[in-house]
Amino acid sequence: MSGELWRKNLISIEPYVAGEQPKSEDIIKLNANENPYPPSPMVQKVIGEFNTDELKKYPSMDASLLRQAAAEYYGLKKENVFAGNGSDDILATAFRAFFNSDTPIVYPDVTYSFYPVWCSLLKIPYKTFEVNENFEINVEDYYAPNGGVVIPNPNAPTSVELGRDKIIDLLEHNRDCIVIIDEAYIDFGGQSSVELINKYDNLVVTQTFSKSRSLAGMRIAMAFANPELVSYMDAVKDSYNSYPVDSIAAAAGAAALKDREYFEETRGKIIATRDNFITALQAMGFRVLKSKTNFVFCTHPKYSAKDIFEYARSKNIYIRYFNKPRIDNYLRITIGTDGEMKALEQILREFVIK
Amino acid sequence: MSGELWRKNLISIEPYVAGEQPKSEDIIKLNANENPYPPSPMVQKVIGEFNTDELKKYPSMDASLLRQAAAEYYGLKKENVFAGNGSDDILATAFRAFFNSDTPIVYPDVTYSFYPVWCSLLKIPYKTFEVNENFEINVEDYYAPNGGVVIPNPNAPTSVELGRDKIIDLLEHNRDCIVIIDEAYIDFGGQSSVELINKYDNLVVTQTFSKSRSLAGMRIAMAFANPELVSYMDAVKDSYNSYPVDSIAAAAGAAALKDREYFEETRGKIIATRDNFITALQAMGFRVLKSKTNFVFCTHPKYSAKDIFEYARSKNIYIRYFNKPRIDNYLRITIGTDGEMKALEQILREFVIK
Repeated sequence: MSGELWRKNLISIEPYVAGEQPKSEDIIKLNANENPYPPSPMVQKVIGEFNTDELKKYPSMDASLLRQAAAEYYGLKKENVFAGNGSDDILATAFRAFFNSDTPIVYPDVTYSFYPVWCSLLKIPYKTFEVNENFEINVEDYYAPNGGVVIPNPNAPTSVELGRDKIIDLLEHNRDCIVIIDEAYIDFGGQSSVELINKYDNLVVTQTFSKSRSLAGMRIAMAFANPELVSYMDAVKDSYNSYPVDSIAAAAGAAALKDREYFEETRGKIIATRDNFITALQAMGFRVLKSKTNFVFCTHPKYSAKDIFEYARSKNIYIRYFNKPRIDNYLRITIGTDGEMKALEQILREFVIK
Repeated sequence: MSGELWRKNLISIEPYVAGEQPKSEDIIKLNANENPYPPSPMVQKVIGEFNTDELKKYPSMDASLLRQAAAEYYGLKKENVFAGNGSDDILATAFRAFFNSDTPIVYPDVTYSFYPVWCSLLKIPYKTFEVNENFEINVEDYYAPNGGVVIPNPNAPTSVELGRDKIIDLLEHNRDCIVIIDEAYIDFGGQSSVELINKYDNLVVTQTFSKSRSLAGMRIAMAFANPELVSYMDAVKDSYNSYPVDSIAAAAGAAALKDREYFEETRGKIIATRDNFITALQAMGFRVLKSKTNFVFCTHPKYSAKDIFEYARSKNIYIRYFNKPRIDNYLRITIGTDGEMKALEQILREFVIK
């Protein structure tokens, strides 16, 4: 009866493959850059006491509670803040709102794997510039005219930060396009560019609650820019999905932002654990890039990254290996608790000595 | 310093305007088709007891808990169910996945206002067919070859249902494209087409938790289709935003589906209130379309819909008026509690007698 001709109009698409989400309780999961600590106790309180009767109504169109808290956190106006369901949602929205040129947008060759996916979905032409042998971005590459710039800072999966001077250099040479700085990992030692939105009206800075705020399970993120750019992101977001951040997520996000003490305590622990773990890796002969994130990116001159990845997995510790050009002998390892990192150190030591 | 040339690449877009969300407590809000009753007590329990420590981890990629509950509810397999952040999210995802033809997709001229918005954003050509003077869809219009079909059933904002025979007729004449039936309002007296996915492998049926499940504030919806179509929707959703339905929303949605008794009780109350309200409207001389939804669509031969809308608003009751061709003398009124509808009846009676 049916010729199944309907298949001809299906989208051509290749799905993203995320880090494995193993189910067993015995597994140490260091492959998705999640935070090892729970969210702030204020988040627990806000969610536990949330009046679910309110859920019968649509959420506030503009997630006011969350935007207001984010504005206060950074000393900005609410109109400078956009709120969305995770960084991926915000970045896809920004790509749609701002990258509408026939001239290619530009970003580093080693970077977040979603950028080319959105470009393909949204039919945005793009071009990449090679990071150098230390995985550093060469800002001069970005001087040439382009349709827009997006860089993660610190970069992922490399963990490498682009310093303030270079960010300013990049912005000074890109006044005629939108520059997006994706600060998913900024809270682990990097210097945020948020305040620069007051000087550069073409700058958009994005941040997430999934890493430093321990709220990966809730899908919350925010972007900072001049109010005109925020209004364009709102228009795109409202057009795809008119009721963006859900009521509980907005309340939870606002609570997380307000508990500065807990935030400082947990990110401080992660930074300290990371620095100790890097020392241990170096003692085993690993080359480790200078990390300003909650993960490290490392390679061993004598052993294959893939073999190490598989050995760790056989011992129930999941880390991340990318079978991609330039980085196929590197490992990306999320910083967990001290105990988790000690367990991994022992496994790695076994492997390196064997 | 800046020539502000960056403005040239901003998207051209006109934002959707949703029903007003008045803040005062004294207002009766019958303009957004929200449910007047709170979500199931099981939802309250699941959220109140949710272990927020789990939020440090990303949600299950496939919202398994929710998909499993939806599959059980309809006696389907989990692979037949797609989960997303509200109907708008699911419909935009389906448009992107399935409407990739150069031949226009088709839908009724009086229908959900987001369809043309998504077509414009996603560059999908479209064509509309007029509903008749009773706002009924003429299925024969849809016999001609097309790039896809989308119809809400019951239709919005008209509240009119397309019966089972006509749905089957539509499907029989559209075997070579994807047919989306948007069942946002199906639980208020209409007959769902979900079971037809077993017969028609090109059928996608979407439903939301925002209306009959009282969870507008959480952004949850589901779609039903053959597993191949579900996998395409997953691929699109994962590519835009890799971690879709948040962990608390998935748990809340599953709890809502399991509490069938509460669901039957609240939808029964809304249907009874609606039918009483329609009788009252008719007694006042209104023409009311036969509603299978949680709202009514009505007009008065002697009075302007806009004047009635404004009068009700002046009395703190918000209903919906659309300044659009064919329906600019109609009102869309959400069914609230008996008390709320009695209050509105009194206001309308004042207006009609005056």
